[in-house]
Amino acid sequence: MAQLIFTEDRAHPGLDDFRDLSTADRRPDRPGGRGLVIAEGTVVVGRLLASRYPVRALLGVERRLRELEDELAGVDVPAYVTSAETMAEVVGFHLNRGVLAVADRPEPPTVSQIVDSAQVLAVLEGVGDHENLGALFRNAAALGVGGIVLGPGCSDPLYRRSVRVSMGHVLRVPFATLDSWPGGLDVLRARGFTVAALTPRADSVPLRGLREKVPGPIALLLGAEGPGLTDEAIEAADVAVRVEMVSGVDSLNVATAAAIAFHEVSAGSAPLE
Amino acid sequence: MAQLIFTEDRAHPGLDDFRDLSTADRRPDRPGGRGLVIAEGTVVVGRLLASRYPVRALLGVERRLRELEDELAGVDVPAYVTSAETMAEVVGFHLNRGVLAVADRPEPPTVSQIVDSAQVLAVLEGVGDHENLGALFRNAAALGVGGIVLGPGCSDPLYRRSVRVSMGHVLRVPFATLDSWPGGLDVLRARGFTVAALTPRADSVPLRGLREKVPGPIALLLGAEGPGLTDEAIEAADVAVRVEMVSGVDSLNVATAAAIAFHEVSAGSAPLE
Repeated sequence: MAQLIFTEDRAHPGLDDFRDLSTADRRPDRPGGRGLVIAEGTVVVGRLLASRYPVRALLGVERRLRELEDELAGVDVPAYVTSAETMAEVVGFHLNRGVLAVADRPEPPTVSQIVDSAQVLAVLEGVGDHENLGALFRNAAALGVGGIVLGPGCSDPLYRRSVRVSMGHVLRVPFATLDSWPGGLDVLRARGFTVAALTPRADSVPLRGLREKVPGPIALLLGAEGPGLTDEAIEAADVAVRVEMVSGVDSLNVATAAAIAFHEVSAGSAPLE
Repeated sequence: MAQLIFTEDRAHPGLDDFRDLSTADRRPDRPGGRGLVIAEGTVVVGRLLASRYPVRALLGVERRLRELEDELAGVDVPAYVTSAETMAEVVGFHLNRGVLAVADRPEPPTVSQIVDSAQVLAVLEGVGDHENLGALFRNAAALGVGGIVLGPGCSDPLYRRSVRVSMGHVLRVPFATLDSWPGGLDVLRARGFTVAALTPRADSVPLRGLREKVPGPIALLLGAEGPGLTDEAIEAADVAVRVEMVSGVDSLNVATAAAIAFHEVSAGSAPLE
């Protein structure tokens, strides 16, 4: 059971992990960066506690920590209980979610480990927007995508904002970085994946019906909203597919286009709780 | 051709439409509200100029207004050219998009008018979040939805933030308010629409394959993220459908779930430009 520690001492060394939160999630080689994983709010903190991420500590107002009683029963970490005011002063801004947890980053899985356990993968190129990246993980979790492979130009899924927008699903959907691009896609192909690039290019085929043509594992290659995938990435794919859209309309947000593609190819048969 | 008026006079009466923009889009009966439609950035301003909305004036830095030269050729409105500093002082905050346009609200279409020209409709209940509402219009425009019917509890699609998030598509996709709820859905049914409620309820059927069962016009009934549709709305629908999701994952964002449903039921055959 987590140990509840009541304090209003802003200088308490146990609170050090929670100071300057707006930069603490940056990589340790960046100014103020400590590479911590930060979860905000009871839902996301609960997911962090249930994840493989080693939680270091919690900080919250009493009401929110009590809401997490069940999730805290099995973990042995300090949980600092303060007023909302003390919390805001330590963190540096006002958090209306009332509870935070910090964790270390475990060793990331390899691409091979991810590939082995998935039937559908998302492979991202140049998705640098933290909110889009977080939304993409949330959609992947909901729609049965087994893992996410990060190509070049993607931001860090463990940034605080991505963790929040993902509703904590960056902590559940495994992800790994592909070092060689786009050549590394051969690793996926060697494991039986068909690599399908999502692009509005004229020579793409409609996404609709892709599942019938490709019954086996699929890796969906997705680029950032705006520029889309590079030509090199599209050339390296086995097939180019498009979401059919009305002409003259901007392309969809990348997380939305991804959700449509995930729905189209996922087995998607498990009922909702 | 729009008339370019160069001024750095912050008190210029022609700039009055652009003052206190953070409240000017509210209904005239609210404090500071003038019910204006406000477009920000060249893309959205361009869409406003191409829409049926009567544009009153533009305000921007010279570079952005020059980018709109083609779109401005056919309209007879004043276009105020100022420095970014003057623009920020008039508007009350810094706009990094560099150009604004304001328009009046034309008489809204009736539900009947919308119904007559659409094969797929979205019907919204309780979608009060401006960003979700804007994203929903963007997705509707991209995926061939012919109109949006607003039930109770929806916010105003013409709020500045919704206009922006929609990329201006709230100005293109027609929408109307249904006064009687959920009884007013009979109007849609009388015009041949099958009303399909999107809900994770246990008695819903998978969205996949809906199109084969319902070849005619479909009205997709969508509720807010979190609470979802009311029981009354679901009962009033002809069929309850669900996006198949992995158990234990939060429901998708309403605009994302809508996009999946729009893709599933839309004819979706027009090629991209």
